[in-house]
Parts: sequence; C-alpha cells; structure tokens
Amino acid sequence: MRRLSLLAITALALGLAPAARADEGMWTYDNFPTAQVKKKYGFEATQAWLDSARRSSLRIAGGCSASFVSENGLVMTNHHCVRSCLLQLSGKGHDYATEGFNAQIPEQEVRCPEIELNELLSMTDVTKKVAEAVKGLKAGSPEYAKKQKEAKTLLEKECSGGDDKLRCEVIDLYHGGIFSLYKFHRYQDVRVVFAPEQAAAHFGGDPDNFSFPRYALDMSFLRAWENGKPVKPEHWFKWSEAGPKEGELVFVSGNPGSTRRLPTVSQYQELRDYTIPEQLIQTAQWRGVLEQFVTSSEEHAHMAKTELLGIDNTYKGITGRYAAIREPKFMAQKMDEEKKLRAKIKAKAALAKSVGDAYERIAKAEDEFRPHRREYALIEGMVPTQLPGVQNARTVMYARTLVRLAAELQKPDGERLREYRDSALPSVKQALFSKAPLFPDFEKLKIAYGLTKLREDLGPDHVFVKKILGKRSPEEIAEEIATKSELRDPEVRKKLFEGGAAAIAASNDPAIVLARAFDDSGRPLRKWYEDSIEAGKNSGSEAIAQARFAIEGTSTYPDATFTLRLSYGTVKGWESGGRVVKPFTDFAGLYDRATGREPFKLAASIEANKDHVKLSVPLDFSSDNDIIGGNSGSPLINQNQEIVGLAFDGNLPSLGGDYFFDPAENRTVSVHSAGMLEALQSIYGAKRVVEEIRPAKAAGGAGQK
Amino acid sequence: MRRLSLLAITALALGLAPAARADEGMWTYDNFPTAQVKKKYGFEATQAWLDSARRSSLRIAGGCSASFVSENGLVMTNHHCVRSCLLQLSGKGHDYATEGFNAQIPEQEVRCPEIELNELLSMTDVTKKVAEAVKGLKAGSPEYAKKQKEAKTLLEKECSGGDDKLRCEVIDLYHGGIFSLYKFHRYQDVRVVFAPEQAAAHFGGDPDNFSFPRYALDMSFLRAWENGKPVKPEHWFKWSEAGPKEGELVFVSGNPGSTRRLPTVSQYQELRDYTIPEQLIQTAQWRGVLEQFVTSSEEHAHMAKTELLGIDNTYKGITGRYAAIREPKFMAQKMDEEKKLRAKIKAKAALAKSVGDAYERIAKAEDEFRPHRREYALIEGMVPTQLPGVQNARTVMYARTLVRLAAELQKPDGERLREYRDSALPSVKQALFSKAPLFPDFEKLKIAYGLTKLREDLGPDHVFVKKILGKRSPEEIAEEIATKSELRDPEVRKKLFEGGAAAIAASNDPAIVLARAFDDSGRPLRKWYEDSIEAGKNSGSEAIAQARFAIEGTSTYPDATFTLRLSYGTVKGWESGGRVVKPFTDFAGLYDRATGREPFKLAASIEANKDHVKLSVPLDFSSDNDIIGGNSGSPLINQNQEIVGLAFDGNLPSLGGDYFFDPAENRTVSVHSAGMLEALQSIYGAKRVVEEIRPAKAAGGAGQK
Repeated sequence: MRRLSLLAITALALGLAPAARADEGMWTYDNFPTAQVKKKYGFEATQAWLDSARRSSLRIAGGCSASFVSENGLVMTNHHCVRSCLLQLSGKGHDYATEGFNAQIPEQEVRCPEIELNELLSMTDVTKKVAEAVKGLKAGSPEYAKKQKEAKTLLEKECSGGDDKLRCEVIDLYHGGIFSLYKFHRYQDVRVVFAPEQAAAHFGGDPDNFSFPRYALDMSFLRAWENGKPVKPEHWFKWSEAGPKEGELVFVSGNPGSTRRLPTVSQYQELRDYTIPEQLIQTAQWRGVLEQFVTSSEEHAHMAKTELLGIDNTYKGITGRYAAIREPKFMAQKMDEEKKLRAKIKAKAALAKSVGDAYERIAKAEDEFRPHRREYALIEGMVPTQLPGVQNARTVMYARTLVRLAAELQKPDGERLREYRDSALPSVKQALFSKAPLFPDFEKLKIAYGLTKLREDLGPDHVFVKKILGKRSPEEIAEEIATKSELRDPEVRKKLFEGGAAAIAASNDPAIVLARAFDDSGRPLRKWYEDSIEAGKNSGSEAIAQARFAIEGTSTYPDATFTLRLSYGTVKGWESGGRVVKPFTDFAGLYDRATGREPFKLAASIEANKDHVKLSVPLDFSSDNDIIGGNSGSPLINQNQEIVGLAFDGNLPSLGGDYFFDPAENRTVSVHSAGMLEALQSIYGAKRVVEEIRPAKAAGGAGQK
Repeated sequence: MRRLSLLAITALALGLAPAARADEGMWTYDNFPTAQVKKKYGFEATQAWLDSARRSSLRIAGGCSASFVSENGLVMTNHHCVRSCLLQLSGKGHDYATEGFNAQIPEQEVRCPEIELNELLSMTDVTKKVAEAVKGLKAGSPEYAKKQKEAKTLLEKECSGGDDKLRCEVIDLYHGGIFSLYKFHRYQDVRVVFAPEQAAAHFGGDPDNFSFPRYALDMSFLRAWENGKPVKPEHWFKWSEAGPKEGELVFVSGNPGSTRRLPTVSQYQELRDYTIPEQLIQTAQWRGVLEQFVTSSEEHAHMAKTELLGIDNTYKGITGRYAAIREPKFMAQKMDEEKKLRAKIKAKAALAKSVGDAYERIAKAEDEFRPHRREYALIEGMVPTQLPGVQNARTVMYARTLVRLAAELQKPDGERLREYRDSALPSVKQALFSKAPLFPDFEKLKIAYGLTKLREDLGPDHVFVKKILGKRSPEEIAEEIATKSELRDPEVRKKLFEGGAAAIAASNDPAIVLARAFDDSGRPLRKWYEDSIEAGKNSGSEAIAQARFAIEGTSTYPDATFTLRLSYGTVKGWESGGRVVKPFTDFAGLYDRATGREPFKLAASIEANKDHVKLSVPLDFSSDNDIIGGNSGSPLINQNQEIVGLAFDGNLPSLGGDYFFDPAENRTVSVHSAGMLEALQSIYGAKRVVEEIRPAKAAGGAGQK
C-alpha cells in the first residue's frame, strides 16, 4: 500500500476516454471548474469553501498527501506513508511498523525523523515574469534554459525570504503554459500518534494491491508540532461518522505526483520501448533480490521489508502502466489526437510559427539520448532514468549529497543544479542529517548490487567501470563502504558539511571517494543532458503546450506536478468483464476473506476483537475521482468538508491514469470514515484520536479558527 | 557460458544486413551453397566431405552441439554444456563442476544421467507426403493442423520402427516450405572424461559473457559408450595443433536452436511489445531471487548455481535481442522488406491467391492471444510463453509428465500432444526416470515462487488461483510438495508410470494432486491455443513462407530449427565504436586480465601452472560464422576437417542474429584448438585426452573407419 505515494508510479484498461470528459481532472485550486460542478451536481464550491479545503490539506514532502483533522493539529494519512518512520522509531523488541503504535498521552507522541508536512498558503501566476527573463532567447538553447532556471530560483528566493518555515516553488503547469509560484508552510516537527498493525493496514498484501474490492485499514494519525506544542491550524476537516452514500458527490484534495497525458507520439513510443520496460526490468530483478534477502533472516526482514513493499508496489504500478501504453489501440488513439492537434495548429499561422519544428525537436532529443540512456542512468542516476542501484544506498546518497553540496554552495543560487538551490536546501539538509538508522548488511547489498549492474550494463572495459572498480570486486568495495564509512554517523556528516569543499577534498572516507568519482564523471553527462536533451524536449513540449493552451485555455487541467489538486467524483462501483463490483466493503467481508495465511492473515487486534466489531460497518469504498500516485493519504470530503474517506489506492484500471482517464473503470480506493472510527473505537481503543475527531465534539462543517 | 546452448536464446547492433549476404547463413547439409563457397574461397565441399562432417557432428538432446574427435568415441563440447551433469555427479566433498574432472582410466569415466547425443544419419524430403495428408483442407483449420500432425507422427514412427536407438523427427524448414524427415542415432550412455574448473571455463563470468576479446577455456570431453564399450564412430574430426590463421576459411557444424529472420511485421511488433519484454521481466525477477538464494549458504549455492548461470545468460541474451528489435531502424527495415515481398506476391496471381489473407490471419491470431498470454503461460506453461514458475520445479515437472503420459498413452499416436508422441517417448522417459538428485529447499523456492506469481498475475480472485490455493499460502503448498512428495524417488516415478491412468487417479501424492489440477485447466487452454492461435499463425506463416520459397527457392537458408547446419566464414576481428578488436587472444592476456576476484579469478590449475604454459599460445578467437544459441559446443573445422576451435559464444552484436545477420559486427567466439591442447598438456596433465586427439597419432584429414 505504498500504492499512491509518489514513488508508486502508477496504468490500464482501454475503454479509452470518450469525448465527454466525465468527472475527469486533477484541478488546481485556482482553476476549479466550479460552474461545471454546479451544473452537474447542484453544489457550488465557493471561494471560501475552496480556501478552507486547501488550507486543511497537506503534502508530505516525501511523496504522500495528508490533512488536518482536528483543531489540535491532528493529521490523517495512510499507514504506508508513515511506515518508514515507524520502522525508524522501532528497535530491539518493538516494531511499531508491524505491531502498530498508540500514544496514550501527548508525551508518547514521537517525532518522525524524516517527515515534513507542507500547507499550501498561496499560488501566484508568474508566467509573465518567467517569460520576461528569456525574452529574445532561442527556445531550447542552453542560454534559454539557464535564464529560465535563474528566474525561477530568484522568484523562489524572494518568496521565502530565507524563512526556514517557508518553502517556495515555481511550478510549471500545462508544461509551461502557466508558471505558478507556490508558497508552503513547512511543519518540520511531525510526530506519530496512532498506527494500526501492518497486517491490518496492508491486509491482502501485494495480491490485493491495485484492486477493489478491498479490506485494508491503511490509516494512521500524526500530529504537527511547533515550538514544542501541538499546532493550532487555521483550517481543518471535521469527521463524518456515517460516511458517504453510493452516488454521493465527493472530493479528493491531495497531491497527485505525475501524469503524462499530453506527450507527443514520439515520447509515448520512447516510454513504451525504453523508459517503462527498462524501469520494469530493473525493478523486477531488484524485487527478486529483496524478496530473498527479506526471507533469509529476521534482521534482514527488519531492514528491507519496507523497501520491498515499496518495490512490490512500484512493480505492479509500472506493470499496469506498461499494459496501458503498449496496447495497440492506445497508441493509435494518441496518433489520432496528435494529428488533430497538429491540424489545428497548422490552421493558425501564429500558432504554426510558434510551434515550428517542436515535434521534430522532441523526437531528435529522444534519438540523441537513447544510446546513452544507461550510461546516464548509472553514472548520473537522475530522472528520467533513475533505477535501483548504488546511489540508492543511503551511505552513498549521503556522500553524494555532501560532495555535490560542497561544490554547489560555492556558486550563486541561480547557477546551481536545481536540487541544490537555496529553496531546496532545507529538505536536502533534513535528509542529509537524518537520524534514521543505517543497516550495514543492507547498505552492502545495495552497493554491491549497484556496482555489479554498473559493470554488467556498461561492460568491464568501460572507462568509468575501470575507474570505479580497478582490480577490486563490487562486493569488496561495498563491504568497505558498509563497514568503514563513517557517514553512518549524522555528526560526521554535519562536520563534513560544515567543512565544505576543503573537507570533502581531504576526506578518505570510502563513500566520499566513491561519490567524488561519480560526481566527476556525472557532471559533464548532466550538463550534456540538460543542455542538449532536456532543453530540446522542454522547449518543444512548451511550444506545443502553449499552442494547446492557446486553443483550450484553462478549460482543461494541467498534468499532475505533485502539488495540491482537487478532484471531484461520486461513490461508485464498477464492472469488469461482466463482473459487477459494488462500491462498499465491510468488516464482515474482511473476516470472511481472511485465510490465516499471509498476506490474508488478520491483524491480532482485529482477530481478537471480532465480537466487538459491528460487522456491517463499511470498511473500504471506491469512487470515480481522478487521482494518481502521490494522492496516498488524501482526504475524501463531502460538500460539508467532512472527512468521508482516506484515499490509499486505485484499482488496476486506474494505473492507466498516467496516460488517460477512463471514467468507466478508473476508481479511487479509500478507507471509509465510519470504518476508521469503528476500528479506532472497537478494535484499537484509541480514545484520544476518537475524542479529537468525533463529530460529537463540534457538529458539522469544516473547522476554522 | 551457457551462452550458445538452446535455452540461451540469443540479439544486436544495427548496421543492418546489406543486400549482399556476405557469409551469412545456417545451411542445411543437403543444401549447402557449395558453388558459392568455391567461387569465393576456391574450396569445394564435396559430397563426401559434407557426409563425413555431418556424421562427425553431434547434437546434445538438451540443447547443445558436440562432435566426435577420436576413433574411440571421444566427444568434444563446452564445459557449460556438461555443467549440470558434473553437478549431478558431485556430492559431499567433491564438486566436479567447480573443481573439474579428469578420468585417469576408462573405469573412471562416469555416466551423465541426462545427456543424450544424436548423430544425424539421414535427411529425406517428405514435403509431398505431408501436403498429401492435408489436401483439400482449409489451411489454418483445426482439421488441417490435426491431419498434418498425424502425417508427421506417422512418418516419424515408420522411420524409427520402434528402435530405441533411433530418433526420427519431421522438421519444418522454411516455415513449411520444405518438410524434411531427420533420422538420428541416439547415444544414451554418455560419460564424462574431462572438464576443467568452472573458473577456467567461465573466466570473466557474466561481465565477459557475450563479448570478445575473451579468455575462457569453455571445453570438456565426453565419451559415447554402447554395450559397455566406447563407441567406434564411423566418422570423427582430427585435431589441428596449430589452429586457424587470421582470414582462414572455417566452418561451424552444429545445431542452431532458433532464429526468427522471417516473421511478419505484426509478429515482430508482438515480439517487441509482449513476448520479449515479458520474458525479460520474468527472467529478471527470478534472476534476482536466484542471486540471493545462491548467496545465502553454500548448500544453496550448490543447488542453484548452475541455474543461475543459465539465467544470467538467458537474461543477457534476451537483453541483446530486445535491444535489436526495439531499435526504430530495425522495425522500419522490416516494414520495408515486407512491403517489397507483398508487392512481389501481389504481382503473381497464383501467389496472391495462395497467400490470400495470410498476413491478416497472423495479426488476428496475435490479437486473440494477447489478452490470454499470461493465463496460458501460467496454467499451460508451454512455448511460446514458458517462463520461470512452478512447472520449473522438478517435482512438479515429473508429476506433470506422469499425469499427462497416463492420459496421452491411451490415445493413438497421432492424436497425442506432440511432446508425447512415440518418437518423443524415449527422451521423455529418460528425463522422467533421471537419477539426478533433487534439492527440497530449491524445489520449495521454485514452487512457492511460481504459485506466488500465479496469484500475482491472475489475481487472488481468479477461479484457477482459488482452485489451486484454496485457503493455503503458496509457501505451504510448496513446503508440502518439497518435503512430502515421493516423486523425488525415481522408483516411485517408475511405479506410477507403470500403473498408468488408474495409478495417477488414485495417487494422493501432493505433486500429482497439483499436476492434475494444472492438467485439467491446461488442456482446454492448450486445445484453444493449438486450434485457434497456433493453427492460424502457422497456416499464415506457411502460406507466406511458401510464396517466399516460390520466389527465392533454396537460394537462401531456412530459419534455425535446432538441427544440424553448416555455417562458413573466416577468422576475423571486428571494430566497435572506433575500437579495433583483434581476432585472437592468448594465455598472456588471460594472466593479465586476472584480478584475483570473482569472476576474474584464475582457476587454481591455471594459477599454479603459469610457469609451464606457453604464454603466446592463442586461447580464444573470433570468426564471422553465422551461429546462434544451440551452437554451443559446435566444432570449428578447417578445409581438412580438422578441429581448429570450439564455439562457445558470440559477441554482443551476434545477439541480433535472432532477427538478422550483421556481417560487420556479428562474431562467433571459440576456444582455439592450440589453446585447448596447451591447457590439456601444460595445465591439466590430461594425458589420455591428449593422446587420443593428438595429430601425431594419425596425421591430417578427417577420421573415417
């Protein structure tokens, strides 16, 4: 159930979207189709309604969504979004991820070392300012890209004003049709309040993943603290004890990570023939390794179980997307759409001129990148090719961050690699100085695996491979780093960071030595990629997106960008191959589906409290909201802004959502608000949480200070 | 280095074959382009020359090639072709696969439980007889397929006359352009004589696999026995002490497994988008599992190392083929070729009529099969979708064979599933009654993995999954079969076999229970596949192939069919990205490349005998013969039919050989005859072998009784 978190890139089913757009769309809060919704459902989302929902919604910096659900800063999200925190807080004899967590008093709430919550304070259109900065420059030229980056960085810096509690990001919407400056409040002290057992949250495991009917209790509660006290948010969602009815209008307010509903045909072909299968193949092998690693001992299971769950989910997600994109019908439809759009562009001289050879430019960039994909992925390791490998090992990641920071911080903000801009530094540092424990065995496994892949894919005679390995084996290098690198100590990392370039240059730490070698060879590759490939593709995409924007305007929604969006839809079952699936499951179904064997084994508390649970209470439900990975933990709210559900997954057909929305089959899967309440009360005795969220406390409507 | 064995499906490099066919071709012995070779090289391969080379050449039933190299039945093949036999013969305290094997006296030669050698006695064109049997029937109809199968089975039966020492097979050449009846002598008592250490045979391991320059000593010697005595073959190859020169004409006589140089564009697309990536993804995950399994203990390494080597090789092979087929240029070229062929067909009324809607029929069959691929693969588990899974576990394979044999043997020969025809029974029984040891841990791993995949891919609610699992977990079922099935005892298998259908029906052996369930559900799927999919594709392919044959005749060669072929070419290096690779490596290079770390660690004997080895003696070499997986172990001979090399691999570009031959880059990689002799003498002191093959014993020319 890392299903909808950002890493869980999510595809399938080929009813293919009809001309009428149904309830499709991940709308920005400043362009919600209020009139359209009012016309269809008779409900008007006023500006106040929208503002309050926006401010009650949260993003978890690592790739999930969440929301405030009490006036005391209580936060609801998925269990799978806090699983790694639970693990980090576990130790000998207690495993909160597996056994659950329940703070009886405020003092028992424990801080998650790596969780940060972001609340979206404002959005400002800065399209003109960004355009101003590149005026007269050739779209796609390195100079254009550089100036645009500088302009964005400057805007972000001005916005945050160096305030560590703020995060500002210029978001490209409509692939450059609109640039919008998003300002977030950062909650950096986030503590766990309650989590059920893994077996409850993840009931059905991988087999049930991306499917409905479902019986998972994938919930958890956190609390935002500031200055040693629980936060009093300005806005929060109340709770609906009854939850939604079939057919009821519901909203998902969350952060969909990424969709690709607008690429060109050549980009779709590249995805189909290279990007996606490559990810899938690499993920599959790493999945196999992890499966066996986890099986080999209890210690290994403790180290790697979370990562395996993530990989299972990634694997199934990519599998679904691959199924969607390689369907001959899908590509045929995209070809047809592209033909029509190009005809419209051609029909208007101004558009034709501004688009120019954009389609060809994109295809050329793909052609140029193709022969170097693996080299780029393995040495520089950045998107779009990021794969399991040596840089996934935490020690190496820390070393890489330190090496790069030392060099980047000497440059003016605008000239740095984007991930080290001032605006990004707080979260870079948070990750770098994390106190999360490191497991040498697991580090060794990852490094050895990564270096072996490096040698396998580039060949033992590749100059970079020779430079890295010399006469040593991948295992030897991995062993050395895993056992001898001092970077496992956050204090050592802090010292090295403070020592800057000189300290890095002088370091003999084996992880730093390795990271320096990667950095040396990675930088020219990165520059080539940004200047020649990315700039070509981006400028092409922007030209096309802007032409499309000129034709369609904001009558449609932008591709997902892991920022806050609002999706509307109704509670609805679905039909699949003649089988009718109803929208609700209940506790009776959960007990019925249990086999006593993993992953269909009931959590101990659920098993023990069978007699106390009202079996007819709904547990999970499906709705036709348009969501994608990153939406994990999103609140489902009704018209009164009461929590009616907690999104944690989509069904299999929803996986095609990366490329298109299929209203007939694409479904959001959520835990039901009544089911959560029943579990908290009758299974977990989680009084504190119940008292905070219980509607009895303050009847109806959205919370507001 | 299972590289060229049949399972090691092999593809790459896109110079794309030029119009001039260079030395391309895997020619049948009855259609060798003698005139063409004579014209180009001035050498005439007479009928006597061809007959003698054919009879000296051997096929290893499991998927390799070999040859007689002495008058006493000594057989040369690759180490990787006998590795599993060496493992089967190993036990506590001695591991012949790793440590090597050297029989000092005939009595020390040990029988390989599963190796059978086939010598091709004759080839007879039976095209007319097969055509006769289907006269008047609609091509592609189930009736057509059934009658054709019956006709083939009858021909094979008549040919072998029930003689256990004969194997007869009707081979489809040119995809039905010619049907040829092949008659083989079966050598069933095959014993190991000599094998070097794994570290010598597989030096460079996976990183060096599919590459050149190389330094591997991938050789071994067997001996065919009959009636308790070494076989005296009628023909055998002598040895060339000096080996070949650069540019010298050399022949490869072996059994290329399978090429697909003639499919339609729709078939290539299916390969690109479904068949190949699916194999690769499945193989990748299983590879990861095996990697970790092998790492977890020495026992596990012993059980699974061979399978891992095979999987490494399969993975790299498919990777290469995938690289070739997804190159946009490749598909463009195939589209162009198809367009031209269709134009030629259209230009002749008779051809146009016979081809009819063959192209569309093939595409339709692909479309129909696509949604059921995984179901078919997982339940029936047959080609073309065979993947790692439950049926790979030996216990399950035995059970399946027993269950199916019990039913099939009650039917007339012609009506049986092809793999249980009378002509196939000897090898089916040999495999079934194999005394090779079974490892419960490994069996359990495979069964649990396979059942988990079954549930993952079909979903926990699929009717077949529910039938197989019920309320049990994959691990429980696997544990039960691995520990409780009595099929691990060959005597129990024999008894069950002899008991026939009644014994199978009455059996409670958990493996038999599982196999019955698979059989029940698999049969209707198989029937549907054969009648609707395969028949449609085959009849379409045949119609096109026959039209092509009418246009081109035997001026070209048929796709590989794992039967004996002769390829000619010259000893030649290659150029890659500006790097010039010379055709020979030597012992000096081997010692130089060694790092002391796996897989570049020298074998103990090689390390110890550095002072005795002539460092300038050539070790491996490359030539531009056209070969593919199945050619492993093929002799390379000169014009005098002397052994000059032993094929064991191709370079990376050779992997594209599945789809096209690229003369500029496709290279065969062989051990050099002088290098083999030097190793036998100066490193291994393998006197007996040296004395048998030494040219001093009988000077020059091919051996003949």
